Amino acid sequence: MGFEYLTNTPLSQAKTDYLWTLVEHGFSAGTETVGVQDSYHRITSKAVYAHINAPHYAASAMDGVALLAKDTFGATETTPVTLRKGSFTVVDTGDPIPDGCDAVIMVEDLVKNEDESITIHSAAAPWQHIRQIGEDICAGEMILPCFTEISPAAIGAMIAGGVLKVEVLARPTVGIIPTGDEIIPPCSDPKPGDILEFNSSIFSAMLQDWGALPKTYPIVPDRFDEIKNMLSKAVKECDMVLLNAGSSAGRGDFSVAAIREIGEVLYHGIAIKPGKPAILAYKNAVPILGVPGYPVSGIIVIEELLRPLIDRWYGRDSETRTRTRARLTRQVVSGLKYQEFVRVRLGYVGNQLMASPLPRGSGIVSSFMKADGMVEVPQGTEGYTSGEEVRVRLLTPKKKLKNTLVVIGSHDPLLDELADLIHGENRNIYLSSAHVGSMGGIMAVRRGEAHAAGIHLLDTETGQYNISYIKKYFPFGGVYLLRCVGRQQGLMLQKGNPIQITSFADIAKDGVRYVNRQKGSGTRILMDYLCQKHNVSPDSVYGYEREELTHNSVAVQIAGDSADAGMGIYSAAKLYGLDFIPVCVEEYDLLIPESAWGTGMMRQLIHTLKSSEFKARIEALGGYTLDHPGEIIDVF
Amino acid sequence: MGFEYLTNTPLSQAKTDYLWTLVEHGFSAGTETVGVQDSYHRITSKAVYAHINAPHYAASAMDGVALLAKDTFGATETTPVTLRKGSFTVVDTGDPIPDGCDAVIMVEDLVKNEDESITIHSAAAPWQHIRQIGEDICAGEMILPCFTEISPAAIGAMIAGGVLKVEVLARPTVGIIPTGDEIIPPCSDPKPGDILEFNSSIFSAMLQDWGALPKTYPIVPDRFDEIKNMLSKAVKECDMVLLNAGSSAGRGDFSVAAIREIGEVLYHGIAIKPGKPAILAYKNAVPILGVPGYPVSGIIVIEELLRPLIDRWYGRDSETRTRTRARLTRQVVSGLKYQEFVRVRLGYVGNQLMASPLPRGSGIVSSFMKADGMVEVPQGTEGYTSGEEVRVRLLTPKKKLKNTLVVIGSHDPLLDELADLIHGENRNIYLSSAHVGSMGGIMAVRRGEAHAAGIHLLDTETGQYNISYIKKYFPFGGVYLLRCVGRQQGLMLQKGNPIQITSFADIAKDGVRYVNRQKGSGTRILMDYLCQKHNVSPDSVYGYEREELTHNSVAVQIAGDSADAGMGIYSAAKLYGLDFIPVCVEEYDLLIPESAWGTGMMRQLIHTLKSSEFKARIEALGGYTLDHPGEIIDVF
Repeated sequence: MGFEYLTNTPLSQAKTDYLWTLVEHGFSAGTETVGVQDSYHRITSKAVYAHINAPHYAASAMDGVALLAKDTFGATETTPVTLRKGSFTVVDTGDPIPDGCDAVIMVEDLVKNEDESITIHSAAAPWQHIRQIGEDICAGEMILPCFTEISPAAIGAMIAGGVLKVEVLARPTVGIIPTGDEIIPPCSDPKPGDILEFNSSIFSAMLQDWGALPKTYPIVPDRFDEIKNMLSKAVKECDMVLLNAGSSAGRGDFSVAAIREIGEVLYHGIAIKPGKPAILAYKNAVPILGVPGYPVSGIIVIEELLRPLIDRWYGRDSETRTRTRARLTRQVVSGLKYQEFVRVRLGYVGNQLMASPLPRGSGIVSSFMKADGMVEVPQGTEGYTSGEEVRVRLLTPKKKLKNTLVVIGSHDPLLDELADLIHGENRNIYLSSAHVGSMGGIMAVRRGEAHAAGIHLLDTETGQYNISYIKKYFPFGGVYLLRCVGRQQGLMLQKGNPIQITSFADIAKDGVRYVNRQKGSGTRILMDYLCQKHNVSPDSVYGYEREELTHNSVAVQIAGDSADAGMGIYSAAKLYGLDFIPVCVEEYDLLIPESAWGTGMMRQLIHTLKSSEFKARIEALGGYTLDHPGEIIDVF
Repeated sequence: MGFEYLTNTPLSQAKTDYLWTLVEHGFSAGTETVGVQDSYHRITSKAVYAHINAPHYAASAMDGVALLAKDTFGATETTPVTLRKGSFTVVDTGDPIPDGCDAVIMVEDLVKNEDESITIHSAAAPWQHIRQIGEDICAGEMILPCFTEISPAAIGAMIAGGVLKVEVLARPTVGIIPTGDEIIPPCSDPKPGDILEFNSSIFSAMLQDWGALPKTYPIVPDRFDEIKNMLSKAVKECDMVLLNAGSSAGRGDFSVAAIREIGEVLYHGIAIKPGKPAILAYKNAVPILGVPGYPVSGIIVIEELLRPLIDRWYGRDSETRTRTRARLTRQVVSGLKYQEFVRVRLGYVGNQLMASPLPRGSGIVSSFMKADGMVEVPQGTEGYTSGEEVRVRLLTPKKKLKNTLVVIGSHDPLLDELADLIHGENRNIYLSSAHVGSMGGIMAVRRGEAHAAGIHLLDTETGQYNISYIKKYFPFGGVYLLRCVGRQQGLMLQKGNPIQITSFADIAKDGVRYVNRQKGSGTRILMDYLCQKHNVSPDSVYGYEREELTHNSVAVQIAGDSADAGMGIYSAAKLYGLDFIPVCVEEYDLLIPESAWGTGMMRQLIHTLKSSEFKARIEALGGYTLDHPGEIIDVF
């Protein structure tokens, strides 16, 4: 295909133009008639009127007798009135009031005599204890106006009013067409080059929440005719169509050409990041949205460009997300050319809401899963500095954020296990961890951005862990150091050690591909210390600059044969079946600011650290030693 | 059945005892395994770990060429490097990185030569433009902790991590058993005595929102054995059972006896109103809740007593409703003996949230449909005075309340038509009306409780409508009077006028059953004026004390042969096919306080009053004259 230059249309303009172009082409909601019992949460398309009265007959509101009120006039405690059999009727609640009766006396308020007459000590008021016809709903009255969401009680009111069917706005059917030669249905053993098709599952879930009916078509290979034919079919069968991937301008990107054969392209290229190569097109009143293939781009494109169309369909307000303000824990650099959407993790530390930017790669679907909010950097802005207050679109309720322990620092899989154990024991407490290395954790605690930080910092002069760093960075105290675990650090190697690494110095051998950890991580500090100790020059280590953020991701590179060696903990080597040369046992502790001390969340954390369940989990991971976890270490 | 005295257990005690009795009998959530694609909104029952890395191979992040970074070292603008065919591989985004390559150069950054070699003007950094294995998710890492709701992105992350099935908390199946000889399935032509079974439809909708699976059983007649057998079946098939109706202590209330045969009764009778006769029972770990038959009682009982069990099942917080403060427009009298739940309509007038109590009858399901909030009057409290600030549990979002025109005053069906037309034209504006009569409307405007009041008050001295009342009640002005409609008032009579009423004075004839309107309504003032004028003594009118709140409900009593005559407007007589003796044409106008003037909502109201759609709707109702509706009447 020929290369097509993408436009860079601002999002707000693209949104408005797309919506109104569609409206001018007749885009609007259809209607359908459904059984009232199946109408929950649907939206009426026109006013609903009652067909019958409710109640539809005058009914007794009590268990007792029905009679003519006049017959009881004058009855008092001292001058009771006795009515003979035949001048009253025994009724239960809900029974019709017999002809000629206009009041009910409760069973508790009358005396039954042996001759089947009754005696009454208080006059009945006409119409007492009678549910009048139409007391609830009168026939012909409006039960619901147009464009009203149907509630449980409205279902009851409609049935009571004899309305068994109701006309509602149809749910828009949204066709999803996955395309791509390399795309395969979800499986658990893909081959290299296979890409699992999960975008349609993500989009389907989002669409359901917005009141649309997703309809996913089979995967179409990168062939112009096949894409065109499937598109043509979907446009006939659906109210809106998503063509997934192939929206950029590379080899084998046939989307825009196929769309041009079927309908009209309004814009190709929107000034947003991620999501730039979106295609905004339509065939008559059916929107055809070309959605980029990376999941994060896709989520943002359909949230920003399809959702407003569904909102318009239902005639409801577009903006339903709550916005709030939060302080950035790191800078966010953004290009002037695009409006950028940055996912953030949020946490309350004290009363301040903190926003930590998540990885921005548009292929990283886990970043969306972890996101508590979204920061929008407007087009024409270079981003925000660390510590700046920014507006955040909330994706997680504030209440949950207030109950979340924010742990920022060194990575260890035990943090995930802790999160699971804590939430399993106390479902109102959550633990969220971010991996920025030990030094990053110390800084986060200093800046008041975290409730805790995992650290394992070796003082190479004393051989002691953590304490000298705390004394240096917290000269006036104000923090606690909580004993967590001892863990085995070492060199992780490919299974069977094919290139025969036997000592630390071997990482500088020719042909060895090393994979490093990021600066500021405890493991990197250890690595640099070992280089110095063993006289290994970083320049001689191939891959010294290649940085990964976690033990697991280092191990995965080695297991996947994209590296031969890397420093890490035994549990990561064990998880991926790697060989391991032990180097040292280090102390991995938790640094906690005084401000976070003593809260219910912190007490739960300590309680869990001391539990036998924690011990069992940690032992299963392997390579850890536990020596009174949860105890305070004397620092100052 | 023998009469059983009900206990009067306080709600909070009943809730706690019920929950913990069940927990002690083993009440807890089951689990089930579902396909990840069907897992949206489900709750994980244990932590989910990735099976494979995502990406599961090192992949190109760009369209370009893959090569060994080393081969490009030294390349600059002035010293380009040329690589011959075979020393690089052309790759598209997502393609695997070939063995021996460790970097990708974008297609834009290289020059293709005629001999199929490429020239590069800038060195590649190792691993640039490569998506590392596990960049998104590493195999073995925790994707989700236990007891976590599954989001769209989490579905994507699980599939990316090779997880195709996930263990989640099972949805509790809640059996609903409707009972009663008089109960019939929904239909539109019930016979007197038939009661339409709509409780199960209401309950089913509520249960769906709480994450439960409703299972409605066929209607069971009031026979002990049949109820017992159905209950026994339901207890085996369900996680929780609702036995609807027959929970009180009257004739044919077999519920509690049947439950005692199957399981244990903890309490019969709770100190709440409505809902008192609830039965709290269980069979082992299966709760059996005897729910009163009136819909409002039923809704409150399952909200207060079943919902906490479902919340416990899922391990989530019970209280999710927002509470706020509102000022009562009328007093709420409550018995000391019960905790009472009072439905209220809410509206913002200025910045003050006003709460108007709705009809409290437990058979009035429409009151729940109209309710924006619930006021709880604690046990031991006699209620609240008019104007008192009370706590309200919100059922309608505040945003909608802020966009709602509050119209309090005289009833006319045109108000429903206005509500429909306004909301149809502007879906962000709502109109809510309450019928308290013309004088009630004047008082509501005086107290700042309404944006508008419909009034039609005859000054019997001048023959003029409304103006003298406004001068009297608003001596300093501050209100506008807006022309609405002229409407035909008269005597509504049974079709064919069987008892030959030919003049107003005939309502006092022997055998005539009159039905009146409430004090303070314009129609009642007209009635009293006509009595005086025609020398009719109220004492001589049978049914003078029988008061209905709307024209329609008066007409319905006549149409249903529970009355012979009543005053009302022609449109009501027409709706129910009644005979009609015209009496006068009255002016029905809208009184509007200055504070509500000029707002967008008010301008929409006036716009709609002046529209041809309003004219068409009003003419279809019949008996109205339109003379420039929406114009301001000169009062002062």
